[in-house]
Amino acid sequence: MQRAMCFLGHSRRQFGTSAHRLDITPGPQAKHFLPKQSLMLPAGTFDGKLAFITGGGTGIGKAMTEAISKLGGTVVITSRKLDVLEATAKEISDTTGNEVIPLAADVRNPDAVKAAVDKMVEKAGLPHVVINNAAGNFISPTERLSNNAFRTVIDIVLNGTANVTLDIGKRLIAAQQGAAFLAITATYAQYCGSGFVVPSACAKAGVEAMHLSLAAEWARYGMRFNCIEPGPFHTSGAFDRLDPTGEFSAQMVKDTPVGRFGELEEVANLAAYMVSDYSTFMNGSAVRLDGGEIPFTAGMFNKLNQVTQEQWDIMEKMIRSVKGS
Amino acid sequence: MQRAMCFLGHSRRQFGTSAHRLDITPGPQAKHFLPKQSLMLPAGTFDGKLAFITGGGTGIGKAMTEAISKLGGTVVITSRKLDVLEATAKEISDTTGNEVIPLAADVRNPDAVKAAVDKMVEKAGLPHVVINNAAGNFISPTERLSNNAFRTVIDIVLNGTANVTLDIGKRLIAAQQGAAFLAITATYAQYCGSGFVVPSACAKAGVEAMHLSLAAEWARYGMRFNCIEPGPFHTSGAFDRLDPTGEFSAQMVKDTPVGRFGELEEVANLAAYMVSDYSTFMNGSAVRLDGGEIPFTAGMFNKLNQVTQEQWDIMEKMIRSVKGS
Amino acid sequence: MQRAMCFLGHSRRQFGTSAHRLDITPGPQAKHFLPKQSLMLPAGTFDGKLAFITGGGTGIGKAMTEAISKLGGTVVITSRKLDVLEATAKEISDTTGNEVIPLAADVRNPDAVKAAVDKMVEKAGLPHVVINNAAGNFISPTERLSNNAFRTVIDIVLNGTANVTLDIGKRLIAAQQGAAFLAITATYAQYCGSGFVVPSACAKAGVEAMHLSLAAEWARYGMRFNCIEPGPFHTSGAFDRLDPTGEFSAQMVKDTPVGRFGELEEVANLAAYMVSDYSTFMNGSAVRLDGGEIPFTAGMFNKLNQVTQEQWDIMEKMIRSVKGS
Amino acid sequence: MQRAMCFLGHSRRQFGTSAHRLDITPGPQAKHFLPKQSLMLPAGTFDGKLAFITGGGTGIGKAMTEAISKLGGTVVITSRKLDVLEATAKEISDTTGNEVIPLAADVRNPDAVKAAVDKMVEKAGLPHVVINNAAGNFISPTERLSNNAFRTVIDIVLNGTANVTLDIGKRLIAAQQGAAFLAITATYAQYCGSGFVVPSACAKAGVEAMHLSLAAEWARYGMRFNCIEPGPFHTSGAFDRLDPTGEFSAQMVKDTPVGRFGELEEVANLAAYMVSDYSTFMNGSAVRLDGGEIPFTAGMFNKLNQVTQEQWDIMEKMIRSVKGS
Repeated sequence: MQRAMCFLGHSRRQFGTSAHRLDITPGPQAKHFLPKQSLMLPAGTFDGKLAFITGGGTGIGKAMTEAISKLGGTVVITSRKLDVLEATAKEISDTTGNEVIPLAADVRNPDAVKAAVDKMVEKAGLPHVVINNAAGNFISPTERLSNNAFRTVIDIVLNGTANVTLDIGKRLIAAQQGAAFLAITATYAQYCGSGFVVPSACAKAGVEAMHLSLAAEWARYGMRFNCIEPGPFHTSGAFDRLDPTGEFSAQMVKDTPVGRFGELEEVANLAAYMVSDYSTFMNGSAVRLDGGEIPFTAGMFNKLNQVTQEQWDIMEKMIRSVKGS
Repeated sequence: MQRAMCFLGHSRRQFGTSAHRLDITPGPQAKHFLPKQSLMLPAGTFDGKLAFITGGGTGIGKAMTEAISKLGGTVVITSRKLDVLEATAKEISDTTGNEVIPLAADVRNPDAVKAAVDKMVEKAGLPHVVINNAAGNFISPTERLSNNAFRTVIDIVLNGTANVTLDIGKRLIAAQQGAAFLAITATYAQYCGSGFVVPSACAKAGVEAMHLSLAAEWARYGMRFNCIEPGPFHTSGAFDRLDPTGEFSAQMVKDTPVGRFGELEEVANLAAYMVSDYSTFMNGSAVRLDGGEIPFTAGMFNKLNQVTQEQWDIMEKMIRSVKGS
Repeated sequence: MQRAMCFLGHSRRQFGTSAHRLDITPGPQAKHFLPKQSLMLPAGTFDGKLAFITGGGTGIGKAMTEAISKLGGTVVITSRKLDVLEATAKEISDTTGNEVIPLAADVRNPDAVKAAVDKMVEKAGLPHVVINNAAGNFISPTERLSNNAFRTVIDIVLNGTANVTLDIGKRLIAAQQGAAFLAITATYAQYCGSGFVVPSACAKAGVEAMHLSLAAEWARYGMRFNCIEPGPFHTSGAFDRLDPTGEFSAQMVKDTPVGRFGELEEVANLAAYMVSDYSTFMNGSAVRLDGGEIPFTAGMFNKLNQVTQEQWDIMEKMIRSVKGS
Repeated sequence: MQRAMCFLGHSRRQFGTSAHRLDITPGPQAKHFLPKQSLMLPAGTFDGKLAFITGGGTGIGKAMTEAISKLGGTVVITSRKLDVLEATAKEISDTTGNEVIPLAADVRNPDAVKAAVDKMVEKAGLPHVVINNAAGNFISPTERLSNNAFRTVIDIVLNGTANVTLDIGKRLIAAQQGAAFLAITATYAQYCGSGFVVPSACAKAGVEAMHLSLAAEWARYGMRFNCIEPGPFHTSGAFDRLDPTGEFSAQMVKDTPVGRFGELEEVANLAAYMVSDYSTFMNGSAVRLDGGEIPFTAGMFNKLNQVTQEQWDIMEKMIRSVKGS
């Protein structure tokens, strides 16, 4: 595989590391939108519940694992890297006292998925919550991508999600057990897409279509399906190489009306709600969590926010004098 | 005004009365999607906070008032009917021990809105939460509506929301105080519209556009804006006249993948989250809460859910024998 | 009425005057996307057909009038300004040899609409084509708008469209005559909205909802309904006051992937198709015509188009050497 | 590969055969929406232009080939079946007098795509029009699909489209030649998805995301990208097995406001416009062509179209007497 621009790995590191760039100054309005990092659901919300989370070792996956574990659930986390999973599992389990089970699996491989689900069933049963969070991405001009690079992202994000969903879904149907599915996609997953991350945009659009389609089809078996579309969360490590001066990140913050990046705990709180029994009537929804970035950047006249109050004053006077004439 | 088909009044009674039609049987799958009616946010979430809710006397408005009041907030509720407001305010306040202030106002009248907000400011200050929930609707073939009927719905739902938002927004800007705005719209507010409720579809589409637009524009002043799009909640009273046998309601439940109507408390829990400090990164989002009805009814092949497993078996065999030949 | 920022009048002058700013340089890629200004439909496509176009005296309205007239149709054009209408009617009719009928009417007034339609029926019958194109707009920070300013835009754009559609629609139903309706909205009409044009965003979102809703409801009477969402067309006259240096217009062209503004004839060709018999299966569609501006501005990573090929080369090498180590 | 429900092959036969089911009666309103099957663009529109169309041998692909060939273009058609391609090429070329070049290729295989494009370049040069139309589908409950079945549809529809787009796109960039790309997707490609065709929904959502993303990214190289979302076109052959009594097809027509299926020539006319020089400002648009099916089925209250005028009369009276009391 030609990894022309392999900035971003299997577990969606582009969104969400706990470390923020210190050099990106939030907007002055951010003081009105301080992130709340404590859990919002009642203690014990997931008592007796089992969750299966792909890409669960790092980033948003880890934050969701921590939230569900703190709220009483048992969590199975998977990714390709057993050492990372084991460290995360131990760290979270030590804090919460609830079991976190690390199971290595490459979601691209249906047999590996089957083996991991077999182990989960053996150890803890069938899940009540399934979160499709594994991701992969290339930030690159599309003409620099090989067919293999494109296919690799589709394989991880779209076929990987299908492998997990088909395997667990069929078992749930056979067992007549319901479940709440959630996919972590992106604001560019539908409606607009995005250049420079085209394979990811295609794959995530596919994942959303899968979740909306199964919301309609599989609810008769007791399963519901939703998505979260995270917007600008800080992109650490790899992304910094693309943006060494922080200019692009600073522009992202300027393009985000609330004036800051999102925090992992904010996605985790929303995700926990969306897979809990408090949201059983939510099915087939894709919830955007982006600080208002999409409406801001897409709305044609929003760049007028650079016009100063003084300039508006002058224009108002000009127009009034014209009207009066 | 010709009120040809005036089924639905000022406060959105079409969605949400606590009484459910007992004669609509939920689908068998609904046992997997039992509604959770207890509050999900931590006690005290709205301590020291003030909320302003239009259409707050009944239905979803009342449910949201109750939720915020229970969670520690002071709530100002408005509608045209002071007696209904007073009864609701007393009922909730007696239970929660927190103040609920009834203020009559016709949202169509900017002066009435100004007077109500003046009173609120005098008694309790400027709000931290504003919920635009007042509604009006005619369920009718569009050709039976007069221009006045059309305009009346636009006046209540769209201009009324503008009156509230402009008045309170300007004061918040002057006071440099932030706030969380939420509008209760409908699944037919965007993308698809709906016949037989055309003025409401137009008005609610306008309300969504307002909230998305201001999410982009007014976040710089510390305000954020979101919407909830409720789907099939039971339509009580007036609607029953249109559907005396319950046939239409029963079809609605069949078209809702989770197999039941939504409950008011489910909207209230989502709304409380969306105006709380747990969702400060959510801005410019329209969250659908419809049990999957939109993806089910819009997806072209979902009617195949009427094909039985036995029929699928037969077809599979037919195809295999063709392939094998 | 406080016309704080009354840049834009009744007939949508913000999009589309034939005069382009000469000082906005197109992008180099614009040579691949040269506008085609000749008509595309066969001569006589509208022979024997009558079209009713609001805001028909200027801009996009005038361009559509010209196209339909050239293609054989009779066109009734309305706006408040009879002198403008008469000049346009004469100019076009002289060229095409087909009748263009100017009828002054303020679409906000149902009686004025009724009177104009009465005259049309008397002179030419009921229309086969109805184009809701009348517009009004304030480009202004929302907090500088009065309730009246907001309501005025809603009255023109949304209630005005309802007045026309209800009046003509009821007559068509009574006469059992079908028709093709088209509304000219904006890219900010749905999904994203836009700050600084909030009343227009609300009103146009409402117009789209009306057209989609009636596509579903009134097709049984032989009427179909569609929308065109124009993107960045050059904003003449009034807008130039807001943007005296052309900086904002230049940025708009940079944000439009095809590297130029749209031309009126391009909207007219699309509109002519959408109201002709070549598109009888198109119903309930909103067609964006924006040179790709929405996907470009909304897609989160598109700002990476500023990274040079040399920078991409360097990053590729960096990554490969890391991978190789 | 387990072909559990392999009703639909490589070239999108589900939409569009020229033969219609004679036993599906159109609605009475269909007389207002008669399909126009003649070409709408001027003769010679594609003179000197070369088009590349996947799945070009049958259905919509064949109809588009015929349209472009009649309008003066040279067309290269591909699919896996050389005999079908050759027959189509000869049939069309004999009629139009313009060259149609059949080139067998499995779009899933990047090398096969490369070889076909090499041949095209050798014979006719690089294309000015590229239409991604190849499709594959399984109509089946999702739990009856194997991982391989899912992956096969993704491979044909999504990866196949990527293979074609990457290969031709890179060559166009190198040659500094622009082109118009068009993908034929489906109404279930975005927003709603659909059960029982889940792999196709995922793949087509991905194709739309690809086209919107590249509309933003590759316009700088002179390429533009759009989609057509066809709705209910008659599904011949294979689909009839699923619906032997025609019940499902009849319901589809009832759910389509214009009261009939679409015709291939209607898609072909729209497609020809969208890849012609008349639409150079259209970029990143997805145009729905479905007779209004999506707004009708998605709009919550549209089922009230079954209420008779007499029932509405009675209800109006009931309400008036209540109001009067």
